[in-house]
Amino acid sequence: VSELALIDAIERRLRARGAGMVQGPGDDAAVVRSRALAVTSIDTVAEGVHFERSTHGPRDIGWKALAQALSDLAAMGADGGEAYVSLALPADLDDEAALELVDGMEELAALAEVAIAGGDVVRSPALVVSVAVTGWADDEAELVTRAGASPGELVGVTGELGGSAAGLLVLRARAARGAVPDARPAGCDPAVAAALVRRHLRPEPRLAAGRSLAAAGATAMIDLSDGLATDARHLARRSGVRLELSLSALPLAAGVEAVARAGGRDPAELAVTGGDDYELLFTAPARGRPALEGAAAAAGVPVTWLGHVAAGDGVVLAGEGGRPLEGLAGYEHQ
Amino acid sequence: VSELALIDAIERRLRARGAGMVQGPGDDAAVVRSRALAVTSIDTVAEGVHFERSTHGPRDIGWKALAQALSDLAAMGADGGEAYVSLALPADLDDEAALELVDGMEELAALAEVAIAGGDVVRSPALVVSVAVTGWADDEAELVTRAGASPGELVGVTGELGGSAAGLLVLRARAARGAVPDARPAGCDPAVAAALVRRHLRPEPRLAAGRSLAAAGATAMIDLSDGLATDARHLARRSGVRLELSLSALPLAAGVEAVARAGGRDPAELAVTGGDDYELLFTAPARGRPALEGAAAAAGVPVTWLGHVAAGDGVVLAGEGGRPLEGLAGYEHQ
Repeated sequence: VSELALIDAIERRLRARGAGMVQGPGDDAAVVRSRALAVTSIDTVAEGVHFERSTHGPRDIGWKALAQALSDLAAMGADGGEAYVSLALPADLDDEAALELVDGMEELAALAEVAIAGGDVVRSPALVVSVAVTGWADDEAELVTRAGASPGELVGVTGELGGSAAGLLVLRARAARGAVPDARPAGCDPAVAAALVRRHLRPEPRLAAGRSLAAAGATAMIDLSDGLATDARHLARRSGVRLELSLSALPLAAGVEAVARAGGRDPAELAVTGGDDYELLFTAPARGRPALEGAAAAAGVPVTWLGHVAAGDGVVLAGEGGRPLEGLAGYEHQ
Repeated sequence: VSELALIDAIERRLRARGAGMVQGPGDDAAVVRSRALAVTSIDTVAEGVHFERSTHGPRDIGWKALAQALSDLAAMGADGGEAYVSLALPADLDDEAALELVDGMEELAALAEVAIAGGDVVRSPALVVSVAVTGWADDEAELVTRAGASPGELVGVTGELGGSAAGLLVLRARAARGAVPDARPAGCDPAVAAALVRRHLRPEPRLAAGRSLAAAGATAMIDLSDGLATDARHLARRSGVRLELSLSALPLAAGVEAVARAGGRDPAELAVTGGDDYELLFTAPARGRPALEGAAAAAGVPVTWLGHVAAGDGVVLAGEGGRPLEGLAGYEHQ
């Protein structure tokens, strides 16, 4: 199948979505009716770095690439809009797999009410998927950056942590044991393990929660893509503050403790360095606490308060008994 | 140097540009004040497919990646706006080279008055650069798609063709002969060869010409990235028409004939299949001819009329004496 035939097949799998689309895929560029502020991010996943084909099927890769990009819009408090997808495809990935990848992406696009409005398909030595997403807002006051935290504020996080990293450990253990898909992971109930795996393979960007938290008065926000240890540092640095967080407060997903211990890892360390949870870390004045909890609950996610903002810089992650945990390298895709 | 330090160094090399930027690089997403219509495209170049590091330095790669994306905005008649850049960097490309790549891209961004407003840097098995660009328009009537051509109209092209493909032949011949940078290519004056090489390495997207041609009444337009033979077919297909073009009318760049013949290639075949010229192919009613020529001239480029639009489908490229040239496979990055 030629590149053009593949592009045709891809375009047939995409559904128009949203009221603003003037020109979708198939021309030199897409044309979209805008709102006042365009909020745009680009994110890339590469084989061998962000996923392995031994643990991630094509649909998982497509889903993940879009989820990661949309999570940045969630962290701004923007409404999702359109996605533009670049597929750099190696010769050993057949067209059927490329179409499955698009199906996985389109499945999340439908869930997130985002349109895949354009793209590019090229041959490449390695599988690399880039997704640019544009979201929209009507006013700057609707949006939240990483830079607005002030000393004295609280630090909260949505949902549960560590589930994605634990899910990846389960996937890797399965791959090492010979790809028995329902093999029971050590120390963990099979249903719980399946939930962890799903958490890793199908993360749901917190678009609704991001909008709600922004509207309810969050002062700074970031999504947890690289792990709490690293992403909290980004927020602290951009806000010019210090974050003092309690590891004993971490909302660990069910099964994280069992999977971590079975793999010889500390559960809290796994949860703060593991990455790919795509929850939202945010700051807010203490008086805003009920409003923020209510806003997140309305979007279907719980909030956990992890600590507070102080003057200074950096992040302190205090373990049991208040001792700071040293040497958390954070999680960087290298 | 860590990934974060590299990202910091990259951000220091980018200059804000344009009145609409609310939030540039460094947060979860960029925020830009919009105009009525957002025009967006994403394009990718991959090592070994779109460039080789033996013929393309890092600056050339950065320039080319942005040029290719901006050329799509030119073909819509949109104003340039912002670029979002993903760099997937292999371990054998050092940080200095990555920064040079950004410098090459920023150099073109300055020339095109476009801001690099965001990006992503990841490790990857291969060098892959994706660029999403957003341009702007105030009204749908300002924009031109591939779909508006009607039988009876003329087909024109801006600038000169074949220069990029001939420049690549010169570069490859030099690389094969051992990288003597000023080695005289067979059959071609050194100054002419240098111009061809520059044409390949530093293509200038026709943003001003695209806007002018759109305003002057072009009915359909496409940029020549894959070569006239392929791109004319795209336009014909989207418009539901047949393009009848004369190869004897082709505006070959100086030196294309000599370089093609020295390499055993037919000059016209090289020019229509070679790709990467980033000129604009467009259609317009015959009565619009003076206006379109004037519009292009005002943007600093000549127009050559290649033929006309007929009922039917496909593209006929008629050679000397009107015989159609058969078997032009077109140029696809496979």
